[in-house]
Amino acid sequence: MDMYDGILTTRAIRRFTDEPVTEEEVMACIRAAVQGPSGGNIQPWQFLVVTDPETKATLGDIYRRSYERYEAALLPLVPPFKREEDQASWNRTIAASRHLAEHLGEAPMLVLALMPAISMTLTDAEGDLDVGTPYASVYPAVQNLMLAARSLGIGSTLTTVYRIRQDEVRELLAIPEGYEVVALVPLGRPAGKFGAARRRPPEAVTHWNRFGEKRR
Amino acid sequence: MDMYDGILTTRAIRRFTDEPVTEEEVMACIRAAVQGPSGGNIQPWQFLVVTDPETKATLGDIYRRSYERYEAALLPLVPPFKREEDQASWNRTIAASRHLAEHLGEAPMLVLALMPAISMTLTDAEGDLDVGTPYASVYPAVQNLMLAARSLGIGSTLTTVYRIRQDEVRELLAIPEGYEVVALVPLGRPAGKFGAARRRPPEAVTHWNRFGEKRR
Repeated sequence: MDMYDGILTTRAIRRFTDEPVTEEEVMACIRAAVQGPSGGNIQPWQFLVVTDPETKATLGDIYRRSYERYEAALLPLVPPFKREEDQASWNRTIAASRHLAEHLGEAPMLVLALMPAISMTLTDAEGDLDVGTPYASVYPAVQNLMLAARSLGIGSTLTTVYRIRQDEVRELLAIPEGYEVVALVPLGRPAGKFGAARRRPPEAVTHWNRFGEKRR
Repeated sequence: MDMYDGILTTRAIRRFTDEPVTEEEVMACIRAAVQGPSGGNIQPWQFLVVTDPETKATLGDIYRRSYERYEAALLPLVPPFKREEDQASWNRTIAASRHLAEHLGEAPMLVLALMPAISMTLTDAEGDLDVGTPYASVYPAVQNLMLAARSLGIGSTLTTVYRIRQDEVRELLAIPEGYEVVALVPLGRPAGKFGAARRRPPEAVTHWNRFGEKRR
């Protein structure tokens, strides 16, 4: 698969076929994940692969109950869209998200990305140094995992909604308190198609030399 | 370029040739960036491309002064490595990071990723909902940008050290207070080679069905 085309056509996949994802395939995805960048090369990631049907089903139930609270709280805050096509696109996303919430436990494989609580505090005579967030050292790896999956024909989506019930996730999977669950990524062959997701055009979010300078 | 190989061989590039990066190339990278995922498809990103030599030089000076404080605070905290090859690898990384700090302003192009201060607070009758960090909605886009660059033969590295002097960066580039600068990414043709960076093996960071379950 061509790399540039593959990146452009990696969209959230929320409906999967029953075809299994193999251990070799997920390890290839994690191999790509760990090539992601991290501050000082600390590699602050662990991956937990859930394949056991009963565990997947329980995790799916936790996810569904999380999603229900999320959607009920979110929808009243979203104003109607001005353009009909934007409204239709949003409606499709919500429908797909609901489908995922109701069927997450049936996805062929679930991968959780974990990050230990790491102190990034540096101090000198002038005070504490802001060197950024540890999340900068883990979400690129998650993106690598999803892109590698794409290159193997495997769809995925980055979810964080389970965090509403993170304690239940932690207990189910024996995740120590010292680890934060930063993403839950279902993997499976797309029931639909890969393709470019709707986005604002890059020109609309690009500035040249000074913020607000749009032409060049 | 093959997608999977490209992901595996995208490593931090900190030394660049003088060959320019074109406007078309950086726009192709930003086009890939905006295809990254974001919670509720909010697309919370702006990109600021710095090409003006004087602005690059000033930004390079800010970066160098930030890096000096960073390195002076960091190095005393890093214990010696047990394995000679790990120590040698770390030494090479520090040397390359110093080189970048001294020459950032000479990189063919600098791209800053910005994120508006967004409220992700959702509440229901039971209280606030933790639906994750907004950084989950921007660092995947930054990774896409760097991978798209790789597919074009352009090297990059994700830096956050400038945050030590973020106010100076903000003033130089007229970045409004409401935006956080989440990454500074230099772009240019590698003076060295692309290739797989040293990482712990994926098996060492993978668990099966329960945390700590290493075999399967």
